[in-house]
Amino acid sequence: MIEPTTLTVSGERIQAAYEFSGPPSEARGRAEALCVEQTIEFPADLVPDDDIRGQIIGRIESEEAVGPNTVCIGVSYAVETTGYELPQLLNVLFGNSSLLPGVKLVDVEVPPTLGEHLGGPRFGIDGLRRLFSAPDRPLLATALKPMGSSPERFAEMAYQLALGGMDMIKDDHSLANQPFAEYAARVTACAAAVRRANDLTGLNAIYMPSVNAPQRLLEERMRIALDAGAGGLLILPGITGFDHMRDLASRTDVGVPIMGHPALLGGFVSSETGGISHRVLYGTWMRYAGADLSIFPNYGGRFSFSPEACTEIAQACREPIDGIAPIFPSPGGGMTMDRVTEIVDFYGSDVALLIGGDLHRGESLAKTAETFRNAVE
Amino acid sequence: MIEPTTLTVSGERIQAAYEFSGPPSEARGRAEALCVEQTIEFPADLVPDDDIRGQIIGRIESEEAVGPNTVCIGVSYAVETTGYELPQLLNVLFGNSSLLPGVKLVDVEVPPTLGEHLGGPRFGIDGLRRLFSAPDRPLLATALKPMGSSPERFAEMAYQLALGGMDMIKDDHSLANQPFAEYAARVTACAAAVRRANDLTGLNAIYMPSVNAPQRLLEERMRIALDAGAGGLLILPGITGFDHMRDLASRTDVGVPIMGHPALLGGFVSSETGGISHRVLYGTWMRYAGADLSIFPNYGGRFSFSPEACTEIAQACREPIDGIAPIFPSPGGGMTMDRVTEIVDFYGSDVALLIGGDLHRGESLAKTAETFRNAVE
Repeated sequence: MIEPTTLTVSGERIQAAYEFSGPPSEARGRAEALCVEQTIEFPADLVPDDDIRGQIIGRIESEEAVGPNTVCIGVSYAVETTGYELPQLLNVLFGNSSLLPGVKLVDVEVPPTLGEHLGGPRFGIDGLRRLFSAPDRPLLATALKPMGSSPERFAEMAYQLALGGMDMIKDDHSLANQPFAEYAARVTACAAAVRRANDLTGLNAIYMPSVNAPQRLLEERMRIALDAGAGGLLILPGITGFDHMRDLASRTDVGVPIMGHPALLGGFVSSETGGISHRVLYGTWMRYAGADLSIFPNYGGRFSFSPEACTEIAQACREPIDGIAPIFPSPGGGMTMDRVTEIVDFYGSDVALLIGGDLHRGESLAKTAETFRNAVE
Repeated sequence: MIEPTTLTVSGERIQAAYEFSGPPSEARGRAEALCVEQTIEFPADLVPDDDIRGQIIGRIESEEAVGPNTVCIGVSYAVETTGYELPQLLNVLFGNSSLLPGVKLVDVEVPPTLGEHLGGPRFGIDGLRRLFSAPDRPLLATALKPMGSSPERFAEMAYQLALGGMDMIKDDHSLANQPFAEYAARVTACAAAVRRANDLTGLNAIYMPSVNAPQRLLEERMRIALDAGAGGLLILPGITGFDHMRDLASRTDVGVPIMGHPALLGGFVSSETGGISHRVLYGTWMRYAGADLSIFPNYGGRFSFSPEACTEIAQACREPIDGIAPIFPSPGGGMTMDRVTEIVDFYGSDVALLIGGDLHRGESLAKTAETFRNAVE
């Protein structure tokens, strides 16, 4: 037994919910183990009846059967366990328990003080609507592709797409620093092309290059983009870390909208009974980490998200959270022009439609982009 | 159709393998779609018969039924698609396809030129064996816990554990910058404690603090640790990014051993038919990203990895890879003293045994640590 510990804590707690699959009679015991695992990770019988036991170990708050073999258990944690830092928040929520069988993180709510520390998105729905002078229509996003193209070809595409009225022209997430189109040359050319188009249209299209770079080059690549006049950034938090995105969102010397891309993050939602719910991963976490838009594969495209999962994500993007602005869900992944009406009907107008390859079917990119914009307006 | 593209490529290719679950007759078509998804993410019918089609789109190399409803398909990618950078390598291997149903990444092999760019671990098995003057025995690792303890208590634990002969005394992965034991105070105290013990024992125990910090503080926290005399670092690449770890491993101004911890990474292996194999995630990727030791939950503990999964990981840690040193598998997660013989029989002596909480059962930490060391010697 270790010596008793006295601690000062605020009493503010993070609320999480986990689904336990398996015999319902075992769920509570497994939840108790999780409460230890996510905090002290130490034999509970060696902890006396002190503040570590009372305040640090997670606390079971609720229990509800949500299926014949699934029990949803609410667990709270002292906000101090996170040190008010996002990486440790993610760790407290699911660090080791991601390794436990049949446990899924399905909901999270942080107290307002932690929300303030995280900060969330800089623009959110309202900020982006002002930026694009688009008070109520869906926003329009597209991607520059395919990898293997030259900076000049990407720039010409960006120009056409901006001429056609796209709001956001992002790099395909696969574009990094390949020899076919090195980062600085590509990004500089594309940013200039979008600026030229804006001069003609009077619109405010933004180019959002992908900053998927080695740790030591993240800052330099971001700076190259902003110096070139990129109006936003595409970030892959599953690869460069959620706090990389949050950091950018929090900085006045960055100050541009951020799109969160789900690359690699599909691995977390590929199990029915483990991993993280669509809601938490593509909604809540993306918001905590400062994305102004959360990209995810729409139902009915070439990926596999169900309409229910997409609804869940959209809801988590847009529902009120104290101190953290709502953001645009951005369904993509093989979306086609002929589905625009259906998609807007499904999500409502607080959505950023992401159509990539399909805009290349037609006589010119500017024309298909214009058709896309008209369909939405 | 886009204009034909001419590209110069080296011909060197990354080899990957994916398992496709579902009707075997559909596997090849799905693999062809994956080859596009992971590279150009663009309608293949709009690409002419050029170098983008021939060199950039992934190439199917092999096809083998590995179960009644599982086909393993080998796919290769031009090394240039990665720009010789780890974040983009991970993206090419599984970025978008992590979002496809029923596809699992099960094997990866990079060409030597890319391996050289990645660099891998600084120490590896041989380097750590020299560091600890342990030419053939298993290494001994333990963790400081529980969260909620003061810097003084952690330091006293570290002292006792080093006295008892532990090689590596790491932070529990849950320790960050909590108000109960702020990072700098805690790390400084623990590093000093281990040094004092080393002065008495003549051994070279190292303290490995956890650098799970916000993006902008990663460098500062690492520096505080090294300035305090920490002999190694614990990194959580599932949270701070694989390239954070690789960067540290590559730097001569860091120059200490690195333990890779699987926090959050369990989400990738929770599905039988999706995500990433244990082998690739905890073995190959950890090595590419510079871990000298890869921590994972041992079979038979409180987690759920099977003996087969553990064997797979150990093999991937230790098998030859051109230019990337083999590393220590480090099974942990509820390991107990009474299993030492069994675990060493299972893994052989190229293993770093990680026992945490169980060392606290006994009259003193120094004594139980000594018993642990004697059991291994």
